[in-house]
This record gives sequence, structure tokens and C-alpha cells, in this order.
Amino acid sequence: MYTVFAGGVGASRFLQGLVQVVPQEDVTIVSNTGDDVEMFGLHVSPDTDIVLYALAGAVNPETGWGLTGDTFAVVDQLQRFGYERWFNLGDRDLAMAIHRTRLLREGRPMHEIVAGLARSWGLGCTVLPMTNGRIETRIVGPDGELPFQDYMVRLRTEVDVREVVFAGATGALPAPGVLDAVSGASAVILAPSNPLVSIGPILAVPGVREALAGSRAKRAAISPIIAGQVVKGPAANMMRTLGHEVSALGVARLYAGLIDLMVIDEQDRALAPAVEALGLRCLVTDTMMTSPERKTQLARDVLAGLDAF
Amino acid sequence: MYTVFAGGVGASRFLQGLVQVVPQEDVTIVSNTGDDVEMFGLHVSPDTDIVLYALAGAVNPETGWGLTGDTFAVVDQLQRFGYERWFNLGDRDLAMAIHRTRLLREGRPMHEIVAGLARSWGLGCTVLPMTNGRIETRIVGPDGELPFQDYMVRLRTEVDVREVVFAGATGALPAPGVLDAVSGASAVILAPSNPLVSIGPILAVPGVREALAGSRAKRAAISPIIAGQVVKGPAANMMRTLGHEVSALGVARLYAGLIDLMVIDEQDRALAPAVEALGLRCLVTDTMMTSPERKTQLARDVLAGLDAF
Repeated sequence: MYTVFAGGVGASRFLQGLVQVVPQEDVTIVSNTGDDVEMFGLHVSPDTDIVLYALAGAVNPETGWGLTGDTFAVVDQLQRFGYERWFNLGDRDLAMAIHRTRLLREGRPMHEIVAGLARSWGLGCTVLPMTNGRIETRIVGPDGELPFQDYMVRLRTEVDVREVVFAGATGALPAPGVLDAVSGASAVILAPSNPLVSIGPILAVPGVREALAGSRAKRAAISPIIAGQVVKGPAANMMRTLGHEVSALGVARLYAGLIDLMVIDEQDRALAPAVEALGLRCLVTDTMMTSPERKTQLARDVLAGLDAF
Repeated sequence: MYTVFAGGVGASRFLQGLVQVVPQEDVTIVSNTGDDVEMFGLHVSPDTDIVLYALAGAVNPETGWGLTGDTFAVVDQLQRFGYERWFNLGDRDLAMAIHRTRLLREGRPMHEIVAGLARSWGLGCTVLPMTNGRIETRIVGPDGELPFQDYMVRLRTEVDVREVVFAGATGALPAPGVLDAVSGASAVILAPSNPLVSIGPILAVPGVREALAGSRAKRAAISPIIAGQVVKGPAANMMRTLGHEVSALGVARLYAGLIDLMVIDEQDRALAPAVEALGLRCLVTDTMMTSPERKTQLARDVLAGLDAF
């Protein structure tokens, strides 16, 4: 049984490979809901939906998010009523937000809702939100706190990040199934997602970090930083301004004590000794998931790396 | 100042003509919200939206409801999540429902919301919901009560109507402005809408019937029944099964005591003496609004008929 902590695009690509290698039924995904946002009065879960769409083969491959061939009639029309058009939610994407919002208003817990969505998309894996509560990732910049999507989408990450805050984390609980998925798995894999704002919120849910640190599962993380850069998203800039080394080694330092195996790209081979000096095993392989074959191969390599000890 | 009690398609066509004859600023519309329905967790106001779209020149002329050239990506996609597709809400139409729902959830009263929507569509007239409360028109059939849209859209009116109920009417209040619009107008016009389920709910709001009966305004109604048939909708069948004569005379009987002038079609000229025998003036004219010119001419005729006494 494989448990994957997942953010958005990077995680979804790794998961596409993983489910080619192991049965979907053996995979449990713990999804970051710290990016969730209310847009137009609708509850939108960007990271969870990216993962669902990717595993359903429906994600827009050009953007990495949203649905292939989606249209934008609703957000276009909403401008008539004074809404800004910075959050570009497609019409079919919005249908999922409408459905999720309806269920939330009826009092259904998020883990039930997400399980139903995964079934609706024909998935065999288990998809769990990190919490049924509300933890909001906020970016503290020079002008104060921003909701994550404001930072990420509206301001295109052009903010000097001084701190990342997980508002509401202290009182939150892991969603039912999360702690079992960490302690009961044979392997836990931290997907190649932003360690600060994608994996970070999951680890901020009370009990999760401790469960991972104490789990008897074999634990791996895949660096989203390759040759000092990130394939997608603000991880590199954010790590830099927060004083972390922008490298696979910097990522490894953030995860030390929580994982057994650090997976880094061949371009970062020179960092392997320093990673090992943290007390971690280090797997050097091709982590650029630019084709279905390379996604599958990365999943195979990670599982082989976990089998090797 | 002209106040019009309005249902959906028939009323919207009459209003399109009226605003060609008098300034929009002189027109106040009291809109039926008894048909309002929650679909997919969104609050939809079919009659109000038909009127707004028609006056904005945006209504689909083929159906009489919805927006010209609208698409249906969201309702298509919602089927994936188990929703039935009987309520065919277009994507741009749905944007208005999303906006209205958000404002309602924020606690904004419906009359403020509708006023804002009218402004968003560039309208100069005043559009008032009949109430800020919730009055639900329900159809009692052989198998019990049905919400109006279930009867109208899902079951395509194929129900033996035994009674029409306005659930919640007893405790409801007219929306701010409604009673003033009835008592302070120079003319009140009951649009050619279904007297039982479009004008009926407005009259069922406590105080409205009394205000209309006691108003010093000149009061007219236009029969939606022409030659024993209705141009659109279930009025004819519904009147028949509820024991009313399916004719302009039957409509006049429903409004006796509330109006001064009954406007009937030339095809029903023979009914004029019987209408007058109810103590009403009767204007016989062309009420078939099959072109912009005929809509405008009907408005002119009704206003002239009101001016004549």
C-alpha cells in the first residue's frame, strides 16, 4: 500500500506514472487543501482537482490544471457582475466546484465529498483531503497576509515572501483515514511538490508530521527542485527568500527526520553526498517527467529505491 | 408611473413593448419569485431573469427564456456527478445564479440583489421581487405536492393539477417598495401571464391584493388566454382542471374586484359584453405579441385604454 502526499501539478504527474506501475487500489493520496479558495461563492480545491483530473486522464496537458478543451463562458459572464477575471475557472471545472459547494453546504464532510468525486471520475485509488477542517495557506509579504491564490494567481507570485502561515492549523484534525494511511502504508512518498506550500500544509495538520516521523513505512521524497530550478510554480523563489538553499539538498534538509530516501535528479548528482550526510539514502535518477514514459520510469525507480533497503 | 405585475415570457414580451412607449425610469416591475428554485445548490429566479434578459435585449427569442447563444457546458458536466439534466440552465445564465446565490448567502436581501442585477444589465426601470421572503408555488397533483419547476419543466406540465399552493405566503412580507408601487402608481398593469401561478403568487403576498383593490391607480389586466388557448405555458390546462373557464372571461373573473380594465384579444371580441357584465371596462385589441411592432402597439393600446377613463 502506497501513500502519496500530493500538491498540484508535479504531484499529479508523478501519480500518473505511479498508477501505471501499481494498481490504483493500492494507492492512497493525501491531498493539500491549504490552497482551497472561495471564488464567486463556490468552494474551489485546486490541488485536489488537478490530481483527480490528471488521474482521470482529463487534465489539460498544456497548463497542468483544468480540463482539456474547457470553455470559459461563466467566468466571462461573471465580469458583468463586477467579478475580476484573474481566477480562470473553466465551465466544466466549475461544475465540480458547484457540486462540491452544494455538498459542503449540506454539511457533508470533505473526505466523503472527495471520495465521491474520485468515484465520479472512475478512479480506483483513495483520495483523502488532508483535513475536513479549514486550513488556509497564507503568504506574508511586505504588505501583510495574502490568501495563497491571491499570491499565486492574482499577483503571479510577484511578492517578496517573508513567511508562510497555515491559518487554522492548530485546531484542525487530519481527515479520517489520513493517519492510518501514514502509519499503515508500506511506503509513503512525498511527491515532487513545493515543500513549503504544498507538502508543508499537510505536515502542518496536527498529528501528521508525528505520524510520518514515527511510521514504520519506508518513506521517500522526490525533489521538485532540479538544477536549482523548479519545473513549475514558485518553490524556487519562495525557498530563496525564506532562506533555504534552492536545491535538492535544500529540500532534503526540510524533510530530514521525516524520510528515509531522497530522490534527486541526475543533474544534481553532485549533491548526493551532502544529502547522505543528512542521514538519508539518496537515489539519483531522471526526475524530469516530460513524457508518460518518463513519469512511469520515475515511479518505477522510486519504488525500486524503496525496495532496496 | 407604471407598475407591472410580471410572470415570465408573456410579461417580458409586454414589457419590451411598454419600454418603447414610456421611459424605463417610469416603469416598476413586481416580479413573481414563487417559481424560484434551488438547482445544484444555486438559487435560480426564472421569471425575474426572463424579464431582466428580455429588457436587456439578451433573451433567447426562440425559447423566450435564457440568453441568446448560451452554451451548456456546466449542466452537461454536472451529469457526471449524478445530476439530472431536466433543468437546462445555460452557462451564462448560470453565472447570474452563482452571483445571486453568493449575495443571498452573504445575507443581502433579494430586492437589493435584483436592483443590482437590473443595473448590471443596464436597465433604467425598477425591478422588485414580490417578496424578500420565500414563497414557493407548489402544484398539488394526484401524487401530492410538487415544486413548481418540477411540474413545469421536469414533468412538462403533464400533471392533473388539483390545487395551487403558495407555501410560506402567510408569513411573508412584500419586498420594500412593492406596496408603494401599487398604491402610488398612476397605473397598475397585470401582464399577460398565468393568472394562477404567475400573477397569483404576487397577489398571495400578504397586503398586495388589498393594496391593489384599494389603489387609486388605474388598473388593467391583459388576458394571456386568446381564443381559449394560451400562447405559452400551462395556463389553459391549469385553469380547466381547476374549474375556471378557459377564456379571457375566465381570466377576467379571477381579477374582478382588482382591476378596472380587462384587455382581451380581437379573437375574443364576443366575450366583451360578459366581461363588462362583471363591472369591468373591456378593451378589445390585438394582443398577439409576435413582433416588436405588435408588442409596442399593445402597450400603446393598453395605455390609451387606461387614459380613456
